[in-house]
Amino acid sequence: MTIKLHEKILLTGAAGGLGKVLRESLKQNCTTLRLSDRADFGPARAGEEVMLADLADADAVDAMVQGVDAIVHLGGVSVDGPYLPIVQANILGLFHLYEAARKHGVKRIVFASSNHVVGYYSQGETIGIDAPPRPDSFYGVSKAFGEDLSKFYFERYGIETACVRIGSSFPKPVDRRMLATWLSYGDLHRLITACLTTPVLNHSIIFGMSNNAVTWWDNSGAKHVGYVPQDSSDQFREEIYAQTAAPDLNNPAHTTHGGGFVVQGPY
Amino acid sequence: MTIKLHEKILLTGAAGGLGKVLRESLKQNCTTLRLSDRADFGPARAGEEVMLADLADADAVDAMVQGVDAIVHLGGVSVDGPYLPIVQANILGLFHLYEAARKHGVKRIVFASSNHVVGYYSQGETIGIDAPPRPDSFYGVSKAFGEDLSKFYFERYGIETACVRIGSSFPKPVDRRMLATWLSYGDLHRLITACLTTPVLNHSIIFGMSNNAVTWWDNSGAKHVGYVPQDSSDQFREEIYAQTAAPDLNNPAHTTHGGGFVVQGPY
Amino acid sequence: MTIKLHEKILLTGAAGGLGKVLRESLKQNCTTLRLSDRADFGPARAGEEVMLADLADADAVDAMVQGVDAIVHLGGVSVDGPYLPIVQANILGLFHLYEAARKHGVKRIVFASSNHVVGYYSQGETIGIDAPPRPDSFYGVSKAFGEDLSKFYFERYGIETACVRIGSSFPKPVDRRMLATWLSYGDLHRLITACLTTPVLNHSIIFGMSNNAVTWWDNSGAKHVGYVPQDSSDQFREEIYAQTAAPDLNNPAHTTHGGGFVVQGPY
Amino acid sequence: MTIKLHEKILLTGAAGGLGKVLRESLKQNCTTLRLSDRADFGPARAGEEVMLADLADADAVDAMVQGVDAIVHLGGVSVDGPYLPIVQANILGLFHLYEAARKHGVKRIVFASSNHVVGYYSQGETIGIDAPPRPDSFYGVSKAFGEDLSKFYFERYGIETACVRIGSSFPKPVDRRMLATWLSYGDLHRLITACLTTPVLNHSIIFGMSNNAVTWWDNSGAKHVGYVPQDSSDQFREEIYAQTAAPDLNNPAHTTHGGGFVVQGPY
Amino acid sequence: MTIKLHEKILLTGAAGGLGKVLRESLKQNCTTLRLSDRADFGPARAGEEVMLADLADADAVDAMVQGVDAIVHLGGVSVDGPYLPIVQANILGLFHLYEAARKHGVKRIVFASSNHVVGYYSQGETIGIDAPPRPDSFYGVSKAFGEDLSKFYFERYGIETACVRIGSSFPKPVDRRMLATWLSYGDLHRLITACLTTPVLNHSIIFGMSNNAVTWWDNSGAKHVGYVPQDSSDQFREEIYAQTAAPDLNNPAHTTHGGGFVVQGPY
Amino acid sequence: MTIKLHEKILLTGAAGGLGKVLRESLKQNCTTLRLSDRADFGPARAGEEVMLADLADADAVDAMVQGVDAIVHLGGVSVDGPYLPIVQANILGLFHLYEAARKHGVKRIVFASSNHVVGYYSQGETIGIDAPPRPDSFYGVSKAFGEDLSKFYFERYGIETACVRIGSSFPKPVDRRMLATWLSYGDLHRLITACLTTPVLNHSIIFGMSNNAVTWWDNSGAKHVGYVPQDSSDQFREEIYAQTAAPDLNNPAHTTHGGGFVVQGPY
Repeated sequence: MTIKLHEKILLTGAAGGLGKVLRESLKQNCTTLRLSDRADFGPARAGEEVMLADLADADAVDAMVQGVDAIVHLGGVSVDGPYLPIVQANILGLFHLYEAARKHGVKRIVFASSNHVVGYYSQGETIGIDAPPRPDSFYGVSKAFGEDLSKFYFERYGIETACVRIGSSFPKPVDRRMLATWLSYGDLHRLITACLTTPVLNHSIIFGMSNNAVTWWDNSGAKHVGYVPQDSSDQFREEIYAQTAAPDLNNPAHTTHGGGFVVQGPY
Repeated sequence: MTIKLHEKILLTGAAGGLGKVLRESLKQNCTTLRLSDRADFGPARAGEEVMLADLADADAVDAMVQGVDAIVHLGGVSVDGPYLPIVQANILGLFHLYEAARKHGVKRIVFASSNHVVGYYSQGETIGIDAPPRPDSFYGVSKAFGEDLSKFYFERYGIETACVRIGSSFPKPVDRRMLATWLSYGDLHRLITACLTTPVLNHSIIFGMSNNAVTWWDNSGAKHVGYVPQDSSDQFREEIYAQTAAPDLNNPAHTTHGGGFVVQGPY
Repeated sequence: MTIKLHEKILLTGAAGGLGKVLRESLKQNCTTLRLSDRADFGPARAGEEVMLADLADADAVDAMVQGVDAIVHLGGVSVDGPYLPIVQANILGLFHLYEAARKHGVKRIVFASSNHVVGYYSQGETIGIDAPPRPDSFYGVSKAFGEDLSKFYFERYGIETACVRIGSSFPKPVDRRMLATWLSYGDLHRLITACLTTPVLNHSIIFGMSNNAVTWWDNSGAKHVGYVPQDSSDQFREEIYAQTAAPDLNNPAHTTHGGGFVVQGPY
Repeated sequence: MTIKLHEKILLTGAAGGLGKVLRESLKQNCTTLRLSDRADFGPARAGEEVMLADLADADAVDAMVQGVDAIVHLGGVSVDGPYLPIVQANILGLFHLYEAARKHGVKRIVFASSNHVVGYYSQGETIGIDAPPRPDSFYGVSKAFGEDLSKFYFERYGIETACVRIGSSFPKPVDRRMLATWLSYGDLHRLITACLTTPVLNHSIIFGMSNNAVTWWDNSGAKHVGYVPQDSSDQFREEIYAQTAAPDLNNPAHTTHGGGFVVQGPY
Repeated sequence: MTIKLHEKILLTGAAGGLGKVLRESLKQNCTTLRLSDRADFGPARAGEEVMLADLADADAVDAMVQGVDAIVHLGGVSVDGPYLPIVQANILGLFHLYEAARKHGVKRIVFASSNHVVGYYSQGETIGIDAPPRPDSFYGVSKAFGEDLSKFYFERYGIETACVRIGSSFPKPVDRRMLATWLSYGDLHRLITACLTTPVLNHSIIFGMSNNAVTWWDNSGAKHVGYVPQDSSDQFREEIYAQTAAPDLNNPAHTTHGGGFVVQGPY
Repeated sequence: MTIKLHEKILLTGAAGGLGKVLRESLKQNCTTLRLSDRADFGPARAGEEVMLADLADADAVDAMVQGVDAIVHLGGVSVDGPYLPIVQANILGLFHLYEAARKHGVKRIVFASSNHVVGYYSQGETIGIDAPPRPDSFYGVSKAFGEDLSKFYFERYGIETACVRIGSSFPKPVDRRMLATWLSYGDLHRLITACLTTPVLNHSIIFGMSNNAVTWWDNSGAKHVGYVPQDSSDQFREEIYAQTAAPDLNNPAHTTHGGGFVVQGPY
């Protein structure tokens, strides 16, 4: 079920992996889907419009936001690496985005946060949406920042944000960690739709995962979002186990929620 | 599945909206269903007996309670309004009812509490059964009182009570708030049955809602009651969204659990 | 240190045990102290005025409240007993009081709640101000009601209330239970003063006890009230132990917070 | 789905009730299933090997453990009784077992703990995996000991243990308490399999029960184990209610999680 | 202030370090102080009696306990080491002790537990009395066992126990860890006295430490015990810092509550 | 008591209000105090060295950090305002600082965080150090970022940080809010000293306030830091009340922890 409540939704990071996926499915949620990314990714199709913007450019971000009803913000740096680009896109860029939303009256934002906000928890424990952040990387810290900034904008200006801590959204899981973190494309769309359409969102945190048997995250504190996953990684479990080695329990990349991120750097 | 453990169950408020619904279904739970309300509502049918009583009349309440095995207490004022009638029916009346239960050895009561006990929580947050009360009205305060009084009777005299915080029990949801709060008639009966038949109830609080996608309430602290909803408001979601306006997020009547109750009065 | 912020404070229950004590000390907190009780207790002295009122009489309560800046509400039934008088004074009377406060713009109330709201906890455990109520008596239930009603008035109308769960306020402790629950008269005044003068009170719960070595209550959740006790029951401990028998651990009157209240009744 | 990750699994208590059940199903989880018990229970079958050991005999336990990849430890005293045998098998024996595991490099153990670790909770309340222990018997204390000892071995030596607090694993439930505690044989195997195959287990506690409507236990803190029950006691509910008497709420054997254990002894 | 409530108190482990200290001070708490230890430690003095017992000897323990009003149990193995002696003295011996207490009607026991029950917590965090156990050694596991066993005896038989998690009780602190864990001899006696004399003890856990500036333990959940420390390690801080090296933060012996215990063994 | 553990401490923001205060007192904590600020503030005095640096300049920050044992970081923007300078100094600058600390082996940092991290809590409630952030301003968001970044550096690289959420550190409180938030200069130094000298700090959050009667913050979760305040705002209370108006409870600047910050902006 897709409910269309919005006239024009802005999708940032539209040329990225998940951007391409949501470019298809989010069309059902609005009359016009405005697409944005940093660099040219081709022309708009029917029902779309394209507006390029570097997140570090305040004026470009302002123009990108003007005239939309809601924002699905996938843009910015989505991997770990040196902090300067992360500061530019994920921190300064997010200030630009929320300021533009405030100025132009956009009242609901779906912010692609990340499991790397809580990446230092162990895979041998289950946490809820209220577990204190334990960011595992510069990237994770920048997403924790985004959760805080959006909370400020909600408390001060009433702009509602869903911070979706996306696990691993791919066509199918490809390693053992992903059996827990997998978010199918169908469930990704269902989750974004829930965030866009629940009557009252406030500032909410929700983990982005399918209905996987093994998981480390408990969304029971976010029932008000109304996300009901319909897919599961379980069908891939035997295959993945057959193809991959057992985790090395002395390697934090194998034992933490954040996986490989916890051992990257320094840069 | 309906398990019949009781010889005679008293249903108060039998002439009210939910009373009429349970009048039909509760027959399966007992040999004789004693019906009561404040004013005459016609003759008893097969398997029923009728005993009218004003809750503010101690003797009438005593007579009403004598001879039953269990009580489903829907009676009293069920909307907000001036406090005097609420004190008479929902407070003084409840003292009468529990005293009568104590005197006559009734050991299990299903008390129709209300979501208005927690009406001031925001629809943008999910709470469990142990969230501190935030009553939204005189009515809500009277239901919080009922939860406390029944706790006392459990701790002092071992009378078990299920405080069912009923959401919105109607044939179908009719506005966006009800998508979260809806309790189908079938689930209403399943819930009351669970409260009547679980082996050990103690003093328990449970939210009365169906298996709705968007909800604000988490019953996981009340698994011992054994309520498993089978209906959902989701089938009505598109229709409701089409027929109703978006909530005004500056209006607490649109954003709190209690809905319209939080803006009624003063009287 | 006593800070005088109010022109006229209403003290209800002024002819009762604690009323007499506060009649003396509260004079420092205001220009005029309005005294009220149910029956005549003699003439006003300098700086006082007397206005009798039965709490069950809405008009009398309304008149009693008109023209004051703040209320210290000790009035009502202060022992356990049949529920009808308790409903009249502590429930219906409290509705009257808060409605009058709303109508006349009184914005801060100190409500004499009671440890009997949590009377069923064991003396072998320590609870904070957020422990769920476990009322031990009709009286305790009526005080729990008062805490809920005042919460409603805070959330709806911004009337601030301190619910002071008074332990045992007497010249000195006279039994072993009071070693834990004792609130000296000096600390009683300090506590009321703190409630009247802290800049922002909201709806707060605080236990009323001195700085006793053995206690069952932890006020660390109410630091914003600013109560700093200066007395202690410890100086009386040896004497009390010498004069009183050891508790009977099979008698709930000896082992619960509520003491004797948990075994009174039924009436 | 059964995933086979282990070459050789040791199953202790193999001649007991659940041992016999798992002897069949655990074969799917490994190439060779080593069976052990205190006394001779017949020859090994295909894919099996038998190695008898008294748990109180350190050398025998050491030999029993040598050469296996994982252990499913059902062995020891599984009922309440005098403490000496319990100390021998469940305490001293467990020291032997974990020391042997440490020496021989066994890194994952499924430990049959018990609901009797929390047996003093009331059936009228729902607890999670983090509820503090309230053991109901010498047996329950010995299982709480096992949970602590295995936690030490995880923190010190990285040996992962799943403490499975088994409810009642029988072909079908036979009394009202078992409606809540029942763990079908199929779900038992699914649960053990989940514990053996989840990528990162750490030291985890999980209740062993099927998907029963009435339950007292909430496994949501152990989602990382990946146990998804597929059976339910509900199909037996009407039959059980018809065949058994209502609980006596004054009898702790009828009202506590631990059932009959809470009234056994002293010995 | 020492209150003498008991006729005869049994002090086990009387020949050990703390036993010698308490042998002096506990005389104030009773008419006769019965002293016990494993091996002969000389004759009784005035007001004392001596009764030797090996804790592993049930009959000797039974005789030792007979005729006393209360027990301060310091006996058993108080360091880490091979598990067999620990099982004999601290586990089997504790079963003997509590069984004897049950048989002979002893209703209050002060059990010398240990910070090693929570030894794996970091010195960089503060925990309360309800933090889940993280035992750091065989010794710590045996003390966790004692806490569980005594809880069982309280819930089943009403025998009250204070589990005192003693930090480091010496004439003065001698290393940096002891600045946090130090319990002066005066405070040790005050704490034991509080446990012996508080009117209702139930089963309580309390950390044994003086009023040290740096500490890792918060006793606010045990106010009902009435322990008010009067000494502090702060006066020794400069001296200790001058005499000892900075902690090696990569060495768990320097960074955990348990200190050196976390790196002892295997044996 | 001041314990001198460090050879060379870097104090940033040395020319600011608190910088000048700590410039005097921190000399006792080290042999050499390195002072830094953005712009020239005069020559070094005995026991000092001066090294100017703009926090946004990575090389300058690197040079500033090289050769010190510990850092007290007061530098950066300390008021609310447009976000660009805050990003430069408090976010990019903090990345520079921690990277420099990592490269040069600095293992302990005292980070001047702020009550504005939790500025949206009400003055009518008391929170502990683990309350979720509710930043009240761009400034508050930048301090929340600093708490997250320093947590990452602790978990990844073992660099210990005390996040000191400074209230209002001035010679004396000057308004009613400061009665709660006041941190005397003496207590400021005691607090910084505690953070610098506690044996194990980990990543800790602590509120910076004196021992004020009215407060909204509870440091009991940070006892391991060893901060014991010795001053109190209470001596100023009468004077402040006489000189200042009562708070307007409809103005969040008067009712929130953050005070005036919650109503500044947009810029």
